Amino acid sequence: MAKALPISPLAVPFPPMPPLSGVRLAAGEAGIRYKGRTDLVLMEFAPHTAVAGVFTRNRCPGAPIDWCRAVLPAGRARALVVNAGNANVFTGRAGHEATRASADATAALVGCAAEEVFLASTGVIGERLPHDRLVAALPALRAALAGDGWEAAARGIMTTDTFPKGAVRHAAIHGVPVRLQGIAKGSGMIAPDMATMLCFVATDAALPAPVLQALLSAGVAESFNCTTVDSDTSTSDAVLLFATAEAGNLSITHDDDPALLPFREALNELLLDLALQVVRDGEGASRLVSVEVAGAETDASARRVALAIANSPLVKTAIAGEDANWGRIVMAVGKSGEPADRDRLCVSIGGHRIAENGAAVPQYDEAPVVAHMKGREIALAVDLGLGDGIGRAWTCDLTHGYIDINGSYRS
Amino acid sequence: MAKALPISPLAVPFPPMPPLSGVRLAAGEAGIRYKGRTDLVLMEFAPHTAVAGVFTRNRCPGAPIDWCRAVLPAGRARALVVNAGNANVFTGRAGHEATRASADATAALVGCAAEEVFLASTGVIGERLPHDRLVAALPALRAALAGDGWEAAARGIMTTDTFPKGAVRHAAIHGVPVRLQGIAKGSGMIAPDMATMLCFVATDAALPAPVLQALLSAGVAESFNCTTVDSDTSTSDAVLLFATAEAGNLSITHDDDPALLPFREALNELLLDLALQVVRDGEGASRLVSVEVAGAETDASARRVALAIANSPLVKTAIAGEDANWGRIVMAVGKSGEPADRDRLCVSIGGHRIAENGAAVPQYDEAPVVAHMKGREIALAVDLGLGDGIGRAWTCDLTHGYIDINGSYRS
Repeated sequence: MAKALPISPLAVPFPPMPPLSGVRLAAGEAGIRYKGRTDLVLMEFAPHTAVAGVFTRNRCPGAPIDWCRAVLPAGRARALVVNAGNANVFTGRAGHEATRASADATAALVGCAAEEVFLASTGVIGERLPHDRLVAALPALRAALAGDGWEAAARGIMTTDTFPKGAVRHAAIHGVPVRLQGIAKGSGMIAPDMATMLCFVATDAALPAPVLQALLSAGVAESFNCTTVDSDTSTSDAVLLFATAEAGNLSITHDDDPALLPFREALNELLLDLALQVVRDGEGASRLVSVEVAGAETDASARRVALAIANSPLVKTAIAGEDANWGRIVMAVGKSGEPADRDRLCVSIGGHRIAENGAAVPQYDEAPVVAHMKGREIALAVDLGLGDGIGRAWTCDLTHGYIDINGSYRS
Repeated sequence: MAKALPISPLAVPFPPMPPLSGVRLAAGEAGIRYKGRTDLVLMEFAPHTAVAGVFTRNRCPGAPIDWCRAVLPAGRARALVVNAGNANVFTGRAGHEATRASADATAALVGCAAEEVFLASTGVIGERLPHDRLVAALPALRAALAGDGWEAAARGIMTTDTFPKGAVRHAAIHGVPVRLQGIAKGSGMIAPDMATMLCFVATDAALPAPVLQALLSAGVAESFNCTTVDSDTSTSDAVLLFATAEAGNLSITHDDDPALLPFREALNELLLDLALQVVRDGEGASRLVSVEVAGAETDASARRVALAIANSPLVKTAIAGEDANWGRIVMAVGKSGEPADRDRLCVSIGGHRIAENGAAVPQYDEAPVVAHMKGREIALAVDLGLGDGIGRAWTCDLTHGYIDINGSYRS
């Protein structure tokens, strides 16, 4: 499992991430599963930091998800602890003992309540988390906390990821500049609603927890929940948003306050940026695929059609084979079960209309489509011709690399 | 596409299939897409043959599905024409012209109404079916009709199949012996509800079309609709059941007649046999996987959980890698969205309990599980511990072979 995978051909560089007021980070080696790499991350937040979270809808979540859900309603956070290599999922009572012990130890170090500590774990399912090692490593991390540890933190939470993922956006609230920056990990078991995908975003904006929660829930719906690598949904997904209030903007009390618009847009952009980085690192991915669906009866219907296309193994293997196989796209539309009229369907690839009104466009020019299929970013578009509903989804192709990685994950 | 694939390691021999009274068959080369192999099959049925059918639920079905649905309500059949290599799907008005021309030509040859001709096509989507070639090849097939053409017919309808599929069962109705025998094709795009899967069953029993339909619908629900190769659902799936009435059994008028019990059991067995042969020929399959779910709140819930496990790429790649990764099974249970309590879940592999009540069985003996994972037939079982609901599903593992086959299908 610890063997290095080749970096995804779709990787993007880690952006410059300067310190963010109210956030200090450190990564270290707890030796929980991996050897010779960081596997434990501590983030500490200034007092008065508010928090929001969105979690997996998997019905068998890990113990850290249970922990976060239990402490989230208070809306306050002082620390985040993330370990990689062991997901602490399906570990029974021992799993809850591990989360309790981790939170207690962190709280003692930071000087806060255990309920202000957030936890996340990613890695193998069904093995006990050796929390003694985690707890033993925490003091050194606390001592090493610094404002510039973002890339180290992004690397410390990786599992089968081949590159660290980060994003930064700027906005203003009532004229006061604020910044958002976040890190993410994830490369397989990525599907709505969430996946073994972890994303931690911090901002220096002053925003109360209920406002943060409304913004985050809406942003995740249009980003992470529109991406899929393999349709599998992890037991451990979490997106957390921390607001340290250090920027000193005027107070906002409602998420529909027009003064929030730039912040909302920046957050949505940042979440989509990180979500697409996860897809770019999809296990074995060689192409990033966007699916745009228009003309559906409703937006929700369009989104389901887009995800049916994005989840189809036959569509994804065709793209891996550089095959503009629009017939499989039609199949996927049909299997979605959503309202569709075969004889109104139009399909475009790379912006070139290749099928319309239920049949191939006669003598369409294949050359530009063939060229598009050889690229790294593939654009599929379907118009159902029924209404005004639109929706999007993103995925990657399905290649031998996916089989390689997932056929030997535990070995 | 025409390159020969290696025969599935899970293949089973084609059974002896003697002539069945009232059925004659022939296969020939129409040259529709393939060269140097048979690609067209004609079956002719005795007068008074009744018919039942179950078709894909894909919302974008092929023209032959439209045709069959339109003529099925009359419940009478004299001929079946099946071509391989072109699915006649998403071909607009030309698709319907092709089905009309094919049915008319067949009816003229056989001496029946066009509405007594059933049609099926399988192969590439989105290309016009050159029905002139099909029609031109029919007279030679008609002249070659014989009672012993079952294996030739099973071979003539293959696409990416690596072995021909057939099954025979015997029963009695009111003491009169009857026989059922059928052929099937399919290896990818196999998922409930149906897939590029074609199955044609004939019996010499005398049964009216409404009774046949009730029996077939129930049998398909417990066989083909419990199997999945890749979760994709074809535009062309069809299961047709023809009853020639040549056996001369006493009339049956209701499908709940107790005298039908042996026939019903034989039909269900035959359908499951053929469905599992299709899974055994799943594209790239190296292992046949059965999933048994018990303890669900309802049977329907159990079936959805079983299918979520059977459709999980992470479960399927783990099996390809001989990895008894029960954590991924738990993940798949959770992602199904069905009622489940993590702390009551039990998981068995190969009959060995390896997780129970929410955690791994301490010090369970890995040796027999490791040995089971090296076999060709893998048995997964989950007990949800909630109720009495049970359900089953079958799938195959996900290997490099699937990518090979589907990444270059059209090339």
